[in-house]
Amino acid sequence: MQFELTNDFLELLKEDIARLDSDTVSAKVGQLHPVDIAEILDEVNLVEAQFIFNLLDDELGSEVLVELDEDVRERFLASLSNEEIAEYVDQLDTDDAADIIGELPEDRQGGVLAEVDDDEQASDIAQLLTYDEDTAGGVMAKELIKVNVNWPIVNCVREMRKQAEDVDQVFTVYVVDDNDVLLGIVSLKKMLLSSPKALIKDIYKEGIRSVEANMMAEEVANLMEKYDLVVVPVVDENNRLLGRITVDDIMDVVREETSKDYQMMSGISENIETTDNVIVMSRARLPWLLIAMVGGIGGAMVIGNYEHELQINPQMAFFIPLVVAMGGNVGIQSSALIVQGLANDTLSKDGMVKRIFKELIVGLINGIACTAVLMAYSFIFGYPLALSLTIGASLLAVILFAAAFGTFMPLTLNRMKIDPALATGPFITTSNDIIGLLFYFMIGRLMYGLF
Amino acid sequence: MQFELTNDFLELLKEDIARLDSDTVSAKVGQLHPVDIAEILDEVNLVEAQFIFNLLDDELGSEVLVELDEDVRERFLASLSNEEIAEYVDQLDTDDAADIIGELPEDRQGGVLAEVDDDEQASDIAQLLTYDEDTAGGVMAKELIKVNVNWPIVNCVREMRKQAEDVDQVFTVYVVDDNDVLLGIVSLKKMLLSSPKALIKDIYKEGIRSVEANMMAEEVANLMEKYDLVVVPVVDENNRLLGRITVDDIMDVVREETSKDYQMMSGISENIETTDNVIVMSRARLPWLLIAMVGGIGGAMVIGNYEHELQINPQMAFFIPLVVAMGGNVGIQSSALIVQGLANDTLSKDGMVKRIFKELIVGLINGIACTAVLMAYSFIFGYPLALSLTIGASLLAVILFAAAFGTFMPLTLNRMKIDPALATGPFITTSNDIIGLLFYFMIGRLMYGLF
Repeated sequence: MQFELTNDFLELLKEDIARLDSDTVSAKVGQLHPVDIAEILDEVNLVEAQFIFNLLDDELGSEVLVELDEDVRERFLASLSNEEIAEYVDQLDTDDAADIIGELPEDRQGGVLAEVDDDEQASDIAQLLTYDEDTAGGVMAKELIKVNVNWPIVNCVREMRKQAEDVDQVFTVYVVDDNDVLLGIVSLKKMLLSSPKALIKDIYKEGIRSVEANMMAEEVANLMEKYDLVVVPVVDENNRLLGRITVDDIMDVVREETSKDYQMMSGISENIETTDNVIVMSRARLPWLLIAMVGGIGGAMVIGNYEHELQINPQMAFFIPLVVAMGGNVGIQSSALIVQGLANDTLSKDGMVKRIFKELIVGLINGIACTAVLMAYSFIFGYPLALSLTIGASLLAVILFAAAFGTFMPLTLNRMKIDPALATGPFITTSNDIIGLLFYFMIGRLMYGLF
Repeated sequence: MQFELTNDFLELLKEDIARLDSDTVSAKVGQLHPVDIAEILDEVNLVEAQFIFNLLDDELGSEVLVELDEDVRERFLASLSNEEIAEYVDQLDTDDAADIIGELPEDRQGGVLAEVDDDEQASDIAQLLTYDEDTAGGVMAKELIKVNVNWPIVNCVREMRKQAEDVDQVFTVYVVDDNDVLLGIVSLKKMLLSSPKALIKDIYKEGIRSVEANMMAEEVANLMEKYDLVVVPVVDENNRLLGRITVDDIMDVVREETSKDYQMMSGISENIETTDNVIVMSRARLPWLLIAMVGGIGGAMVIGNYEHELQINPQMAFFIPLVVAMGGNVGIQSSALIVQGLANDTLSKDGMVKRIFKELIVGLINGIACTAVLMAYSFIFGYPLALSLTIGASLLAVILFAAAFGTFMPLTLNRMKIDPALATGPFITTSNDIIGLLFYFMIGRLMYGLF
């Protein structure tokens, strides 16, 4: 049942293609799930991919198109005429169709839409294209089943049969009034269990959670997750039913969002995978490395101010990595908690000051524990008192600062409508490093002056 | 429609409870979604929570129970008798019921099950409890609608009406033979569109993606996400239908998994939130800080070997943070890519050697770029040639090493069946730091010897 793409399968398939053996290739891929076919097309070269793609019928081809990697699809679409694209788009659900047309160069979008045979499909897609892709409107599909509140069930079933032709997965039947205003839902289960003569108004469930078209997709995701919704209707500002969002679409939003935060923390600026080529991979990573390097140069400048002290007490240099690493770790811990809380909408109800205060207490507890271990170590190994006190005091200072800074930054970025995950990336952690070095050497100069 | 929990709402509610004003409290919470009620109970103290909980009817109460934070629920259950718990459990879907009973102390589990009135429910739950909670069997629910392949649609509708009483969301109707072996599905849509006299065997769709009960939940999640499945049937080794997993349950698995990886990278060892108290928060973070500190002490020992060189050339100390930070950043970038690829099952098909080779090329490109910038800086600022060459050469060496090590570690951990995300945590990055320092000072000694 389950198809597993192997290197062997690919090798043999490539040989079949090299022999232009359409029948064998058709037999091998024609029965696969569109997702699996797309995976194959992502792994072969463009000419081979086109050979396979041309063997698929329109319906299968259109579904494969949806599942392709974005860069592969871009090259694919570039090689197709407006008319050909329109044929595939005609087969698709409106949300997928809008995604594909949205990826085309702007000057081609109108041309492709004009070639779509089904006028309703074309106007639905055109409407979806007007929404920002990060909003509910940008994620929703127009396909849904709705019935009028005044109908009897028997009418509905007839009407639903007609509508159901266009809808792959029927989750719920929406109930609307004459002006398309969303009133509630009637579940298929309820319809199965009721007499065909009953009126919808007598069996429907009033009041249903809906989202407005301009709500951010991320918020929709949190809402659906919180309330375990499989599908949610999308309405306009007058509560008129526009479309619906299903959980599989929203799962992509969740995955993308968490991936983005994860990559941000790892210092990767684009959505890359191990299958991308070395140029793409290098490009996605170089910016963060350069930022880290500028930070490192900043650190060198800070330390450079203390060259004289280092000459007298070279042992000061021993604990530079320790102080810097501890500040970095504490800062990331604090920031990551906030970033994750913001993303999942699980942040406590406290204000900024209370939050920072709480982090300072956590920092104090952990800072004292770490400092105790470190002081014990430095006494056992017989470091000078001034050095022991310097590393102890600066460790505590760095941890407290990093805890407060790590909490403050993502919250502030979020208020400024900047992605708070930036606070876990190299930019902020680098500032953290420099401040840590400043603390360390300032305290060092003081301590060596005293003792 | 949408309920938003505010501090004001909580304050007023607490006052109502203090006045033992059951009517007002009932009016305020009785109409809310179970998720919202649970959120309220999580925020008030245990006595207040119990006051609210006792006002809810059994059905609503049982759903609220499912949605509570695990630690709040634990205290709640401890205060209830076996009989009371059994009453709630009786109302729940089997998967939720099994989760709740599974959280009870082992000596209570049998007692509660014995009190469950519905024998079928009790035996279903007992069966679910036999599966590991991280497997498909541990996540599935027994509630589903199935029909015999030999029936006509009209029989099915009658049978489904009976079964549907227990099933909240009907996604698909499973088709089985006389031995309960899963044959395929028949969609409600198809049943709506066909004549009532048609036989199931004539309209059902053969072959359906199913999972075995012992498959890991994470794998199920990847499968459902890959193929956009809303629900997947679970079978035993003989392909007999056992239950089904719906996408809302699997979304929790995805969210947990990505959170775990994210927290691992941030150096947080437990699943904590900003609402947890400072002791929990400190405890979750201290282990990583201590590891980082031991690493820092290791770094101090490495540098300690070069005290004499530092005394002569204190400028060597300037670039310690830079070299260490760059190694850390490159290592995290490489590891994070692998960890994410493993989690999403999107890793390319290359072997270990080819993967490391690719990362080395990426490292070489970025390493040369960074080194060029750094060398330019050091010449402009007139650092001695030996120092410039040292930082240049060691930067390149550190980046290459970190790229290879960062790729090797998560892959190796994964082969050893250890969570590969460990490679992005402080343990490995700390080793990286120490190696970086070794490179830097060894190259430094060499360069200062030569020039």
